[in-house]
Amino acid sequence: MSCHLYYLIFVFYLTQTFADFPYKKGFFDQYVDHFNLISFSNRTFKQYYLYQDESWDPKGGPIFFYAGNEGPIEGFWTATGFVHEIAPQFGAFVVFPEHRFYGKSLPFGADSFKPPYLGLLTIEQAMADFAVFLTALKEQLNVTQSKIIAFGGSYGGMLAAYMRFKYPNIIDGCLASSAPIHMQDINSPRDFFFQHVTQNFRDINEKCYDSVKMAFQKMNNLAASGPSGLRVISEEFKLCTALEDDKSYQHLLGWIRSAFTVMAVLNYPYPTGFMGNLPGFPVKVGCEFIMNSTSLLEGLANAAGVFYNNSLQCYDIYSEFIECSDPSGCGSGPDAIAWDYQACTELLSPRGSNSVTDMFPVLPWNPELRAAYCQKKYGITPRDNWTAVQFWGQNIKSASNIIFSNGNLDPWMGGGVNEDLSESLVSVTVIGGAHHLDLRSSNQLDPPGVVLAREKEKAILRQWLS
Amino acid sequence: MSCHLYYLIFVFYLTQTFADFPYKKGFFDQYVDHFNLISFSNRTFKQYYLYQDESWDPKGGPIFFYAGNEGPIEGFWTATGFVHEIAPQFGAFVVFPEHRFYGKSLPFGADSFKPPYLGLLTIEQAMADFAVFLTALKEQLNVTQSKIIAFGGSYGGMLAAYMRFKYPNIIDGCLASSAPIHMQDINSPRDFFFQHVTQNFRDINEKCYDSVKMAFQKMNNLAASGPSGLRVISEEFKLCTALEDDKSYQHLLGWIRSAFTVMAVLNYPYPTGFMGNLPGFPVKVGCEFIMNSTSLLEGLANAAGVFYNNSLQCYDIYSEFIECSDPSGCGSGPDAIAWDYQACTELLSPRGSNSVTDMFPVLPWNPELRAAYCQKKYGITPRDNWTAVQFWGQNIKSASNIIFSNGNLDPWMGGGVNEDLSESLVSVTVIGGAHHLDLRSSNQLDPPGVVLAREKEKAILRQWLS
Repeated sequence: MSCHLYYLIFVFYLTQTFADFPYKKGFFDQYVDHFNLISFSNRTFKQYYLYQDESWDPKGGPIFFYAGNEGPIEGFWTATGFVHEIAPQFGAFVVFPEHRFYGKSLPFGADSFKPPYLGLLTIEQAMADFAVFLTALKEQLNVTQSKIIAFGGSYGGMLAAYMRFKYPNIIDGCLASSAPIHMQDINSPRDFFFQHVTQNFRDINEKCYDSVKMAFQKMNNLAASGPSGLRVISEEFKLCTALEDDKSYQHLLGWIRSAFTVMAVLNYPYPTGFMGNLPGFPVKVGCEFIMNSTSLLEGLANAAGVFYNNSLQCYDIYSEFIECSDPSGCGSGPDAIAWDYQACTELLSPRGSNSVTDMFPVLPWNPELRAAYCQKKYGITPRDNWTAVQFWGQNIKSASNIIFSNGNLDPWMGGGVNEDLSESLVSVTVIGGAHHLDLRSSNQLDPPGVVLAREKEKAILRQWLS
Repeated sequence: MSCHLYYLIFVFYLTQTFADFPYKKGFFDQYVDHFNLISFSNRTFKQYYLYQDESWDPKGGPIFFYAGNEGPIEGFWTATGFVHEIAPQFGAFVVFPEHRFYGKSLPFGADSFKPPYLGLLTIEQAMADFAVFLTALKEQLNVTQSKIIAFGGSYGGMLAAYMRFKYPNIIDGCLASSAPIHMQDINSPRDFFFQHVTQNFRDINEKCYDSVKMAFQKMNNLAASGPSGLRVISEEFKLCTALEDDKSYQHLLGWIRSAFTVMAVLNYPYPTGFMGNLPGFPVKVGCEFIMNSTSLLEGLANAAGVFYNNSLQCYDIYSEFIECSDPSGCGSGPDAIAWDYQACTELLSPRGSNSVTDMFPVLPWNPELRAAYCQKKYGITPRDNWTAVQFWGQNIKSASNIIFSNGNLDPWMGGGVNEDLSESLVSVTVIGGAHHLDLRSSNQLDPPGVVLAREKEKAILRQWLS
């Protein structure tokens, strides 16, 4: 460990202001391969992390650790105001290590996304990074007896729970927000996702739902009519490059579905810059566009524009949306490559849309399509059972000290833990909450449900830490 | 998983008799690298396993799984009669999968021990083998609700406990016999080992201990006197090749210490063929040789011969003993290479002997010597903290349903769990027991302590399975 400690660099003491939560930053040396010392001969890379110690009580204050997920860590720092707001109440040291292969934490720099390097992007490696980092941090701070609480949202929530599963020697308790861990069992339901997205729009107004369905029907008819139909669609959707064939048409359908998905997932009561720019209650805004439009296609296009930016002259659907191994979306840039690989190897995704239990066109996704895609793209055959074997699937009752929170507006809710499993495996439902709203900063527009949820979460944390 | 199930071959139905416990055998396809699908492109190898289903109750009988450790699995099948004896009482399916890189389970055949292949020999890979195998076995047997109890002795006991730590979704309870898991924390005591070996001989007769100490002193004096002294030693020890220098002399010292170690570890009340051939109560037999000899050196040589076979014309100390990264010994043949690598990467060993707290010559072993040895041999730097980070070190209280049994004659006892840690983390002390005596077949020479221990263990298993 000494080699790690040696590199535990707290040199960047420059404090930045970022959405009102200033942080300090550092880099920590990690082995590129924790599970094979020969493959890369103990080679290391620099894992980036953010931290804040200003409210920390070195005499027994806990460590609040956020399990960095699929993106640059600064974004999660900003989106996780709850942790920063409560840290002073607990005298906590706050630390956000970044997930390998995202942000600045690239084990092989720009080459990271090529084989064989990409093979080192696994949940197990990322968790080992966290475990080694936290152990070294406690030694560095000379607080080996301090308790550590893991926080995380979405995939980060899964990681936080998995850290408590696999490293309870290091993690004393966990708040896993909007973590679809049950979905990681191949035998679990996975149709819930686009159903829930659909329901969110339907709940605004049945007419909104009807219009979306009819709009997609109309598009299909136009597309089936040949080049002239595709031309009409291209114009209505203000596409920078006109559709040429069914392949580009299918891409447009994915682009639209993705916009509706993001609006539903991030349906916060106030504007957010997390994963793009959205207004407050984007689902409602989208439905208003749909219902106030003069034509079905214009309505659909304007609703998609809530996410893709209505003020653009035209949409470049290839830069704005990337088809990948996860029908809920992979984001863009290098992060999208990393996520695509993870969804080919360990992460199980929702099933595609079917136009029956949801309002979207038939855009299928299932284990067979996944296997074909991943074989073609990476030369690998996904192991459908692996994630449940490794991370317990539905069989998690032997764990302890985990809060699973889920918002009832969140399309991911159906993949999560939504009932108490024991005295210390507690479910918290955030009424009126979208994806991990409880982890965000408090806001005057917060629904009462999230205020209550945060109070309950704080009380449980206090109990674990007492 | 389908590809695994496809290969779950139960073709070898030939029943063999082996020490009264017949078995059937099979091979199971495992990925060579569970943690990196790119490195070897989903390549698989055949993991060997033994099983017995004759007493199995397919309607709810449990699976008794032995976590194969560092050697051919047949040896562990034979040495673990307890499991076979109680299986009919529980209607259990008994299965012993072999540990990768040992016995027939070589991921790359005879090339397995070369880089880069050797890098795939890790505790994590071996545990993933077990987890994937057991999951497929339950599907194959169509008993997905059946409970699995893990058994293991020594390193196998560590693996059994670690399986319950890391895969409680698969393992419902565990009997970890003589498992020095606490020693896997670099900060834990590790001087106990040769002290305990020494004490075992001292407990037979103080004169035995005195003679051993004096004999080593005399050897040192002779060795220091130059070639003539080495010649005397070589003759007294019936060496096939005479000692030539200090290096060969040091090797002889290790050879002697190793014999005393094995006699203490396997100090069973009856003869055993496990890890060589030993008479009943070998420590007592060794001491009798020492005390009945006409010279100190003859006594020491004869005592070592209890293990190395006194009837040989001469001893080939280089084939009989291999210096390696574990001062308690690495065995011989390919198994010794595998163990040597494991002790360089994940397994922490006892400290060397010091001639102060033990009766042996100064043959040091510590983290610095380990690092130098492993760097030279494999080009790797051991990570002292890793095993405790990964496998919880002393911080195991959040686990459940584990029996830790230790014999009070066993030199490994000091590295194990010797007190109850919770209602379901139970310690059982086997009075009069050497290394995992409780796992062996019942024998009319058994001390009452092991009979009692086995009854207690059975009662706890029954409670978990009810």
